[in-house]
Amino acid sequence: MSNQQVILVNRPTGVAQATDFIIRTGSIGEVQEGQLLVRNHFLSVEPAMRGWIADAGNYSSPVAIGEVMRALASGEVIASRHPDYRQGDFVMGWLGWQDYAVVDPGQIVQRTNKAELSASLGILGLTGVTAYLALTGVGDPRPGETVVISTAAGAVGSTAGQIARILGCRTVGITGGPAKVRMCVDDFGYDAAIDYQGEDVSTRIAAHRPDGVDIYFDNTAGAISDAVLPHLALRGRIVICGTAAIQRWDDWPIGPRVERHLLVKRARMEGFVIFDHMDHYGEAVERLRAWLAEGRLIHREDILDGIHACPDALAGLYRGENRGKRLIRLV
Amino acid sequence: MSNQQVILVNRPTGVAQATDFIIRTGSIGEVQEGQLLVRNHFLSVEPAMRGWIADAGNYSSPVAIGEVMRALASGEVIASRHPDYRQGDFVMGWLGWQDYAVVDPGQIVQRTNKAELSASLGILGLTGVTAYLALTGVGDPRPGETVVISTAAGAVGSTAGQIARILGCRTVGITGGPAKVRMCVDDFGYDAAIDYQGEDVSTRIAAHRPDGVDIYFDNTAGAISDAVLPHLALRGRIVICGTAAIQRWDDWPIGPRVERHLLVKRARMEGFVIFDHMDHYGEAVERLRAWLAEGRLIHREDILDGIHACPDALAGLYRGENRGKRLIRLV
Repeated sequence: MSNQQVILVNRPTGVAQATDFIIRTGSIGEVQEGQLLVRNHFLSVEPAMRGWIADAGNYSSPVAIGEVMRALASGEVIASRHPDYRQGDFVMGWLGWQDYAVVDPGQIVQRTNKAELSASLGILGLTGVTAYLALTGVGDPRPGETVVISTAAGAVGSTAGQIARILGCRTVGITGGPAKVRMCVDDFGYDAAIDYQGEDVSTRIAAHRPDGVDIYFDNTAGAISDAVLPHLALRGRIVICGTAAIQRWDDWPIGPRVERHLLVKRARMEGFVIFDHMDHYGEAVERLRAWLAEGRLIHREDILDGIHACPDALAGLYRGENRGKRLIRLV
Repeated sequence: MSNQQVILVNRPTGVAQATDFIIRTGSIGEVQEGQLLVRNHFLSVEPAMRGWIADAGNYSSPVAIGEVMRALASGEVIASRHPDYRQGDFVMGWLGWQDYAVVDPGQIVQRTNKAELSASLGILGLTGVTAYLALTGVGDPRPGETVVISTAAGAVGSTAGQIARILGCRTVGITGGPAKVRMCVDDFGYDAAIDYQGEDVSTRIAAHRPDGVDIYFDNTAGAISDAVLPHLALRGRIVICGTAAIQRWDDWPIGPRVERHLLVKRARMEGFVIFDHMDHYGEAVERLRAWLAEGRLIHREDILDGIHACPDALAGLYRGENRGKRLIRLV
């Protein structure tokens, strides 16, 4: 059995491009006592990978040059030397961009099943749980409030938007291009959607929600956020969940100062990273699964086939080409 | 009885200068049923006046051109047509920059006494209560944490710094010039103080507190904040209490983006305005009075004599010339 692996060969200053990776055929490695061998079915592609690759201060140490690209993936246990796992189990965890992974149980994030292999990397995994816990924990939405979401058609954004609607809020999505605007309204049920590429975001927010924005669920930072912040309602909350509009932080970007908005509106801006909240993971997945089953929540997957799609897949996210959660299917 | 009044005659684009006011002799006005007449002893001068004068979006409607300058003041009730107030009572409230004020009870913020007439405008008034409630409510300090305070020698800053120390925190003050640095350490008991005019704030914070800043009590915004934010500890809190370093917001200033700091550190930045928290006013004053009596809290007053000091007194605050709470003494 050969193991195709996507290797980081270059540390980019911005978003990693296809040329920053190579695909090489490596060995699988031996399964030691206490370990398991997983055959990956789906590999995840996510905006946070930019941070995992970056040299600058971040959540965790950067992926080393010459190493398999760090990634969540889901697959089937094909060999186990650990009493808690058996051949035929399905798992999601830190399995990397490769065909096979030998891992310790600590690298497994959650158990899953064959039907939910792809969803465990999206709406029933870190993506959905992030949307749910960031919105409910930091955002604290109450019925009738207005929630504005950037990257509204993306994996986290579209889930947060639907959850806000389920919880009784009015939702305004911000996304790029008429196709995604239609998707926001028709598929994800936003009350309104704004095309930041073709419309003036500030004017449109004022028109849609003259009473102001109670919660801004921010996945972008940058010019979109700058257009939203002057429209905060009193005691508004800004959930900082991602900074997709910023290409690089080593050359620290500048923008309009936020202090006055926060002071005049007595508003709160707070960062959210899912790994601080893993104790609520299970209950969030249960809630999301129930809404999915009731048909109140939909999700879209943007599936590319074959490991050769990996190297360009991350740059493609930042080009805005995906429609929903981007995955690579291997099996 | 003539009534000297400080009148706003010009709406400045930045901080009001002496020439934006005139002093005129007006009438006292008749005391209607339900009103009281107060002779002002002390007039307050505070950074927030810039906002009360500004035309731009703010907490309240701006002071009108031709109107007596809005101000807190303290004095003695010399006539009353309200059953709750008697001649000889002492009060603090929205009495304006003038010798005498005819007011409704709604304009009184608190009762006081002769000995606390000046303190009621500072450490035992909105200044002290702001420091206490902003620090404890938004900042949520825990023993052993590091608290960094800008305008550390100012009225709010020096009180917040001392309260943080009383609550068991390590405190680092940021202030301008060697004299204020000494005052921070010698008088207000900061563990360390940084001179932003002569030292590199970022380097000094890193040297004093290599483990990071748990709470940044921010009265300035601007370059000082930009130097503090990269040193936030995980789950840091930034209390936005004032923006003294920003001369004007009509030409909206730019600065380094904060989103990444908040995300990577899971930090929270929140605005505080005292008028949202008046239900905790009394208990805060009691706490402050007790610490004062025990000698654990000191305060400094920067007293100018005579109403003719008013017009330039606000600009002087922004020039950084005061040492402690600035007041105008009339009686």
